[in-house]
Amino acid sequence: MLIKAWLAGIFLGLLSLGANAELRQFEMTIEEVEVEVAPGFKAKVWGFNGQVPGPLLHVKEGDDVEVVVHNNTTLNHTVHWHGVYQTNSWRMDGVPDVTQLGIEPGESFTYRFVADKAGSLFYHCHVNTAEHIDLRGMWGPLIVEPKEPIELEKEVTKDAIIFVSTWASAVAQDYGENGLPHRILDYSSVNGKSHPGNQPLRVKEGDVLRLRLFAPTSPMSFHLHGHDVLVTHKDGSPLASPYYADVVPVQPGERYDAIVKMNNPGIWMVHDHIEANTTAAGKEGAGSMLVVEYEGIEKPDFYMWKDINYEPDFYMSESLKKPFGLHNIEAFKGKAEESRRRRR
Amino acid sequence: MLIKAWLAGIFLGLLSLGANAELRQFEMTIEEVEVEVAPGFKAKVWGFNGQVPGPLLHVKEGDDVEVVVHNNTTLNHTVHWHGVYQTNSWRMDGVPDVTQLGIEPGESFTYRFVADKAGSLFYHCHVNTAEHIDLRGMWGPLIVEPKEPIELEKEVTKDAIIFVSTWASAVAQDYGENGLPHRILDYSSVNGKSHPGNQPLRVKEGDVLRLRLFAPTSPMSFHLHGHDVLVTHKDGSPLASPYYADVVPVQPGERYDAIVKMNNPGIWMVHDHIEANTTAAGKEGAGSMLVVEYEGIEKPDFYMWKDINYEPDFYMSESLKKPFGLHNIEAFKGKAEESRRRRR
Amino acid sequence: MLIKAWLAGIFLGLLSLGANAELRQFEMTIEEVEVEVAPGFKAKVWGFNGQVPGPLLHVKEGDDVEVVVHNNTTLNHTVHWHGVYQTNSWRMDGVPDVTQLGIEPGESFTYRFVADKAGSLFYHCHVNTAEHIDLRGMWGPLIVEPKEPIELEKEVTKDAIIFVSTWASAVAQDYGENGLPHRILDYSSVNGKSHPGNQPLRVKEGDVLRLRLFAPTSPMSFHLHGHDVLVTHKDGSPLASPYYADVVPVQPGERYDAIVKMNNPGIWMVHDHIEANTTAAGKEGAGSMLVVEYEGIEKPDFYMWKDINYEPDFYMSESLKKPFGLHNIEAFKGKAEESRRRRR
Repeated sequence: MLIKAWLAGIFLGLLSLGANAELRQFEMTIEEVEVEVAPGFKAKVWGFNGQVPGPLLHVKEGDDVEVVVHNNTTLNHTVHWHGVYQTNSWRMDGVPDVTQLGIEPGESFTYRFVADKAGSLFYHCHVNTAEHIDLRGMWGPLIVEPKEPIELEKEVTKDAIIFVSTWASAVAQDYGENGLPHRILDYSSVNGKSHPGNQPLRVKEGDVLRLRLFAPTSPMSFHLHGHDVLVTHKDGSPLASPYYADVVPVQPGERYDAIVKMNNPGIWMVHDHIEANTTAAGKEGAGSMLVVEYEGIEKPDFYMWKDINYEPDFYMSESLKKPFGLHNIEAFKGKAEESRRRRR
Repeated sequence: MLIKAWLAGIFLGLLSLGANAELRQFEMTIEEVEVEVAPGFKAKVWGFNGQVPGPLLHVKEGDDVEVVVHNNTTLNHTVHWHGVYQTNSWRMDGVPDVTQLGIEPGESFTYRFVADKAGSLFYHCHVNTAEHIDLRGMWGPLIVEPKEPIELEKEVTKDAIIFVSTWASAVAQDYGENGLPHRILDYSSVNGKSHPGNQPLRVKEGDVLRLRLFAPTSPMSFHLHGHDVLVTHKDGSPLASPYYADVVPVQPGERYDAIVKMNNPGIWMVHDHIEANTTAAGKEGAGSMLVVEYEGIEKPDFYMWKDINYEPDFYMSESLKKPFGLHNIEAFKGKAEESRRRRR
Repeated sequence: MLIKAWLAGIFLGLLSLGANAELRQFEMTIEEVEVEVAPGFKAKVWGFNGQVPGPLLHVKEGDDVEVVVHNNTTLNHTVHWHGVYQTNSWRMDGVPDVTQLGIEPGESFTYRFVADKAGSLFYHCHVNTAEHIDLRGMWGPLIVEPKEPIELEKEVTKDAIIFVSTWASAVAQDYGENGLPHRILDYSSVNGKSHPGNQPLRVKEGDVLRLRLFAPTSPMSFHLHGHDVLVTHKDGSPLASPYYADVVPVQPGERYDAIVKMNNPGIWMVHDHIEANTTAAGKEGAGSMLVVEYEGIEKPDFYMWKDINYEPDFYMSESLKKPFGLHNIEAFKGKAEESRRRRR
């Protein structure tokens, strides 16, 4: 039925876009900064607003979005809004040499488009993607709240955004290098930080948690212990037939929304089941791992994160509760440095 | 219901196969030729009819198919018809040392079977597959038109066949070598050609495009900008619950049919979101990328393919409109060479 | 409907667990043994009961399970019961430094939990998983029969358990090494044995075969010739919308149940379509391949397994027919050796 309507061209309800639309105006810079992914491993990145991941952009379906992007780095970039249809605005799609020329160092570009697609989207640079996406942290979440959410997502009490990504230490200090074709991806992270330098995800019994899973650089096999998740959306679109899983594979570029009823108090591991990604430079117990902690659980003495200095916004849960807008996250900020790039 | 019927053995409608069936007789050679995958990178292949991909075989469900295969190369081969059930004909399945002996150099073998499974199938050599499939281009499309297409595919106005594959330059000139276990896959292509040596895919507003996606050698994360595709078939079989996607991962051996309503005029990037596959020998802006161009769109001056010499059959769209049969594609032809193989 | 019930907390029918529950008491050791994966390639492993895969644990949903684990090796281990919810028993989840301390050499640990989740589960060590899971064979099947099987699985006449895994010969003899970050996975196996050292899977016409597919270490692209399989369960949970496939990709940690009507007599290849996994140390015709043989088929003279010494329990089909319990499989046993470990 839906599908028939889709072929007839009315599925997206495009006619109704624009009603109650707000104009959202943002500014983002691209900065040459250094992030500490793991103890002893620093990577030079091009951070949106100096962050990895970039800031949360949170808007409503149908909004008019305007983003002024300033390139404060020494190489060209663009911004592609992955998932946005760019209806009547293909020149805003951010592909170098196709829809625009790369934004030169010191220059700016203004992207204007309608948020014509709802769900878990993301933005990323589209220049030399094997370096800019894979190794330089040029990606961040674009969450477009749907006008008509599905029943399941109306129950959600807490949202968490998880980007799993990998890193190549051999070229981490060398702007302009992608390390290919012999590249070794020897570090892995969640929201830019290897375990245990990242954070627990705290919930309370009764929460309905939505995990928004992103794999910008490498595949992941997302596994949460102690629960089945219900996979409800792929690439922002609701699935006609949601399914249960304890491992959610995410291939590069994909996004999955997975909703979990938090009905099983405890402390539960979350990790990439691609076990090589639970190492750092070959050393185990690192990489793309974290822990879900239920409120009120007594923590064992041996628990590694017993007395962690907790940052509640590490999975952007707090920022997602704020009014629509652009939200910087302090924990994702890199450190500015004198630029020392090498070109090939 | 369908599933219950399936267990009862009537789902496939096998009883009706044979009604109105035609006999389709084809001949194919296997040739030692060289293809230029990217500027400066040539690979020695065993091309079906000298092509990579091999010629399009296009038949109707229920047809009697006969393919005489001549091995004009210096090593053994077979042909496996991936997806065909081979009902009552398992000895035609093309597996060396199981269903037949390899076809010796200079010898021929005649495959006879009923096209008992509809959809996007393919054929490939089944000898030493880590070399013959992965590195020597021994694959081509076998499209079996269903007797009873689903409603969605009846709307299709244009079909496109896309094979994404990877290459190992270190052994590209050495027949008999698979490069394992240290193999580096440093080139990637669409229908045998790295971007920008491949072709745009041209459509007009209102088209309903079916993408038939094949990943014979390595996984891909297929991404089309500006549209959601509706994934309707996996491995030739209709999905009970089609789903929308902006990234369609295809694992080795799988096929997906994705139908897209072309309702968003522009010039849109298509690429593998495994970013390493958008490079050639480490250099960016190459590999498994192309562009979908809408008719009538004004092309920017900087557009890389502004004045391309266009070949309308590069995605086999034209051949798929022809009567059933075997269709060679000129653009896929390699160059014959003196054979200089090395055995291990 | 199911989904709504799930959000309301009644989906799992937890209230009814415990009715007719049995107490299942098992003991498992972890042993330092050597397995011969392929001719000339031996790997030192930590085998559960000295086996790779570990013994079959077969229980009924709702059973009380108690497993005493003795660590007879020289490094720490735990056991994680992948898929078990561990309702009210999170301290039994087997994660070192989160739910327990690693079991020291010479020590034991008793796991007690309710089999609160049905389906194809597995157990594995959770210490240094990039070595213990990926390279040391520390995984085995935990099959929990559902109280209320779906209609499709009621038709099953034969079950087969298939674990595809990969190996790194460079560190196969060195306990304490994971080979990362430069690891080369140069061997692949089915239930611990590379083709042709593994076994055919024998069926008879009319069988309804359930394949339970596990990928503990690396992704696989499972392909059975001559049949479409119906994918009915993911990670132990029934799919609301089963789908047909001729290739079933399984990512690390996932499990798929695929049901196949054996209606097409012949001898049919089964293999990983990731072709690099059909090699051993680069040599072709090895790795994760096997053959499905129909009873009564005349075997060609050239058939590689014409006169094989057949072991009917290699895919655990026989053990799965036995009463619930722990079932060791002789074919999976390694050989005990003087321990010669190296720590990093």
